[in-house]
Amino acid sequence: MKGISFFSVVSAVTALATTELHNQGFTTLQTSQSGSILTVTIDNTASNVNLISLNVLDDLDRLVTALQNDSATKVVLFRSKNRDFFAAHLDVTPLVQLPGSNLLLNISRLPQASIAIVDGPARGISNEFLMACDMRFASAKAILGNFEVSLGLTLGAGGVSFMPLLLGRGRTMEYLLSGKDFNAQDAEKYGLVNKAFTSSEELYKYVNQLANRIALFPAGALASIKAAVNLVAGPTADQVRFDSSEFIRLTATVEAQGLLQRFLALTKNQTSVGVELRLGEELPKLYN
Amino acid sequence: MKGISFFSVVSAVTALATTELHNQGFTTLQTSQSGSILTVTIDNTASNVNLISLNVLDDLDRLVTALQNDSATKVVLFRSKNRDFFAAHLDVTPLVQLPGSNLLLNISRLPQASIAIVDGPARGISNEFLMACDMRFASAKAILGNFEVSLGLTLGAGGVSFMPLLLGRGRTMEYLLSGKDFNAQDAEKYGLVNKAFTSSEELYKYVNQLANRIALFPAGALASIKAAVNLVAGPTADQVRFDSSEFIRLTATVEAQGLLQRFLALTKNQTSVGVELRLGEELPKLYN
Amino acid sequence: MKGISFFSVVSAVTALATTELHNQGFTTLQTSQSGSILTVTIDNTASNVNLISLNVLDDLDRLVTALQNDSATKVVLFRSKNRDFFAAHLDVTPLVQLPGSNLLLNISRLPQASIAIVDGPARGISNEFLMACDMRFASAKAILGNFEVSLGLTLGAGGVSFMPLLLGRGRTMEYLLSGKDFNAQDAEKYGLVNKAFTSSEELYKYVNQLANRIALFPAGALASIKAAVNLVAGPTADQVRFDSSEFIRLTATVEAQGLLQRFLALTKNQTSVGVELRLGEELPKLYN
Repeated sequence: MKGISFFSVVSAVTALATTELHNQGFTTLQTSQSGSILTVTIDNTASNVNLISLNVLDDLDRLVTALQNDSATKVVLFRSKNRDFFAAHLDVTPLVQLPGSNLLLNISRLPQASIAIVDGPARGISNEFLMACDMRFASAKAILGNFEVSLGLTLGAGGVSFMPLLLGRGRTMEYLLSGKDFNAQDAEKYGLVNKAFTSSEELYKYVNQLANRIALFPAGALASIKAAVNLVAGPTADQVRFDSSEFIRLTATVEAQGLLQRFLALTKNQTSVGVELRLGEELPKLYN
Repeated sequence: MKGISFFSVVSAVTALATTELHNQGFTTLQTSQSGSILTVTIDNTASNVNLISLNVLDDLDRLVTALQNDSATKVVLFRSKNRDFFAAHLDVTPLVQLPGSNLLLNISRLPQASIAIVDGPARGISNEFLMACDMRFASAKAILGNFEVSLGLTLGAGGVSFMPLLLGRGRTMEYLLSGKDFNAQDAEKYGLVNKAFTSSEELYKYVNQLANRIALFPAGALASIKAAVNLVAGPTADQVRFDSSEFIRLTATVEAQGLLQRFLALTKNQTSVGVELRLGEELPKLYN
Repeated sequence: MKGISFFSVVSAVTALATTELHNQGFTTLQTSQSGSILTVTIDNTASNVNLISLNVLDDLDRLVTALQNDSATKVVLFRSKNRDFFAAHLDVTPLVQLPGSNLLLNISRLPQASIAIVDGPARGISNEFLMACDMRFASAKAILGNFEVSLGLTLGAGGVSFMPLLLGRGRTMEYLLSGKDFNAQDAEKYGLVNKAFTSSEELYKYVNQLANRIALFPAGALASIKAAVNLVAGPTADQVRFDSSEFIRLTATVEAQGLLQRFLALTKNQTSVGVELRLGEELPKLYN
C-alpha cells in the first residue's frame, strides 16, 4: 500500500452513521456503516492468519440474520484486517465440526448487494464464502483456491455448488480435483473474481466507486434483481445440503483424520505464515 | 463507416427475394429477404434514438409469430437503421406499461438462427432483446447495459434470466446491480457478445459470412440443435414470468414513478442524443 | 515434437503396473497403468484418421464400465496414437447407426478424474467425447468442433448438453449452428478447453504434473467432489436422451442421407488426410 495507511483508503466508506449491527457483540467482526454501505472487517485476533474459526462462523451467521431484515443497508463490503491474508481457511483444530448452517445460501440470498474485497490469500471455506458473495474483486496479493481434496474432504459449506456458476464445468473440475491455487490474474480470466487489480489502492478505489453507485439505487430494485438472478444462477438448498452431508461423511473417515493431523503438523498448527502463504505448493508434502 | 454507405454493406444479404413477411404492415421494422436469410431493420422513425416503443414491441411480436411457421427462413439478422443507436431503450413515456408478452422467450425458441448486429448503444430492453437472440456481434460503437435498477425497476422482459447464461453469476450481479455500461471489448471478454470488432465494416463482414454459412444447412438440423441448447441453457417460462411480474410490481411504486419523471427530464423526454449516448455516466444525476 | 519421441514424453506416466483393464481384449484402445493413473490411447488401426468406429465406441463402453468399479484408478488420461489426429470424427459408413448407449453421461459420472490430451483435430463425436471428460488440454495442433449441422444432423451422443456448461449459450449457438472449427487459442479463450499450449511437449508436461498431483488425493474425495459438481453443472439423462432421439430422427431423413453420401465422396471415404485436416473450410463444398 506504499505509504497510504490501510484504513485511510477505507475511511471514505466508513463514516459516522451507525446501526444496531454495531452492537451485536461480535468478537471477530468489525462493522462500520456509512450511509447505506456497511463495511464488515473480518478480524480473528486469535489467529495470525485470520482463520475462519467457529467464532467467525457464528458471528457471520448472526450478521447475515441481522441483514436479512435490515432495510437501511443496501451494500455490504467484506474485507480483512489481517495484513497477510484475507482469511487463510477454516480452523480445522476442532477436527472438523462444521455447523450445519445455511450460511452461504443465506449470504447469496441477502436483499443487499454483497461485495468481497480480496487483498490476500483466501482458501478453503474462505473462498467458499467469497463465491457466495455477489461479486469479488482481488489485488495481486490474492491467492484463491479450494484444497479440501488434499485432506480427503469435499467443500463443506456449499462452495461446490457456487463455483461452476462462475467458472463453468471444466475449470471447476480442474481446480477442485487438484486443490490448486488460482492467482489473481487467472481468477479474473476464468471468472472466479469479477476483476483483478495490480495494487490494493486500485482495488479499493474500484470497489468504493462501485459500492457508492449501487448504494444510490432503491433497495427494492436491488433485492428484486438479486432474487431473479438467483432463480437462474443460484444453487438450491438441496445442492448445498448434499455438499454438507458429504463433508460430514468424509470428515469421519480414518484417511481424512490422518491427513488433518499431518496438515496441523505441516502448518505448525495453522500458524506458519510461510507455509500458509504457499499452501498450494506445500500440500503434496502431506503425502511424503 | 468512412465512405462506405451503410446500405452497401448490407446489400450483399438483401437481394430480391421476398416473402409474405414484407407485407405484415410493420410501421417500425423493415424486412428484406435474400434466399433463406431475413434481415430485419429496426427503424422507429418517431424517435431520434430509435426507442423501443409499444409499436416496435408490437411489430416484433408479429414478426416472431410469423417466423414460428416460416420454413423458408433459416437465419434472421437484426440490425438498426439509426446511425447513432442500435436502439436506445424502452420508450418509458407510457410510464410504463409493458405488454405481458413472451417476446424474448419466443425469440430464443425460434426455429431459425437469430443474430444481432450491434453497431451502436443498446440499453435496457434493447439489451434484453439482444440477449434473447442466439448470437450477438458488436462494433466499437456498441454500448450495452441494463440500467433498470437506477429507475427502481428490474428487467421486465426476461433479461435477468438470459444474462447469467452468457456471463455467469458474478459479473451479472455487478452489471445489473450497478446499472453500468459494458463497452464492446468487455462485452466480448465477459461473453455478453460473441465477438467485438473495431469497425462496422469488420462487423458486417463477419456476420454476413457467418449467416451465409449457416444458411447452407438444413432447417431441421438448425431447429433441432437450438431446441437442445435451450433445454440446457435456456430460461424457463416460469423464470421469465417472475421477471415480468416483478417489473409490474416495481413500476407501480412511488419511488419508480418519481425516478421515471426525473429520467424524462434528464434525457429531455428521451431526445437528447448526448445524454443517451453517455447514459451510464449520467444516471447518478437522477439522485442529485 | 521436434526430436523428442512421442512416447518418451508419455513414458513418465506409463510405467510397469498393470490392472485387469489391460486384459479386456480391446482392439482399438491401448491401456497402461502407472500407480493410480491409467493412460488410455485411442488407436483405431483400421483408419488413417483415427475414426471413432463402432469398435471404438464398444471398447470405450467396456472401458467405462470397468472403471465404474475400479477403485485402484484415480485419474484416466485419454490420448491418441495417430500422429495427425486426436480422432477425426464418427465413422459414418454404417450410415449412421449410433449405439443407444449412455457413454458420455457415464464418462462424466465416473468416480475418477478424466483428462483429455488433445494434440490434433477432434471433431463431431470426438469433441463430444472430449466435452464429457472432466478437463481438456490442447496443443496448437488441436482443431475442435461439431459439424453435425452440415450433415443435417444434431450431435447424437449428448454433446449439445455439455457445450453450454463450458462456453455459455451465445458461443455454443454460434459454433453448433455454423459447424465451424475452434482453433486451440479460441477454445481456451471461450472455455472449451481448460488451457492451450504452443507445443505438444508443454501440453504433456502440464497434464502429467496435474495428473500426478490429483493422483495423490483420496479416491473418495475425488468422487464426492465430482458428484457435487455434476449436480450443478452436469447434464441430465433426459437431456442426453433428447439429443440421441433427435439424432436418430434426423439420420433417417433423405436430406441427411444425401449429405452423408456427399461427405463420403468429399473425404474419399474418410481417408483424405488433407480434407479431414481442413474439414471446417471444406464443408460448404457439400452444398456446391
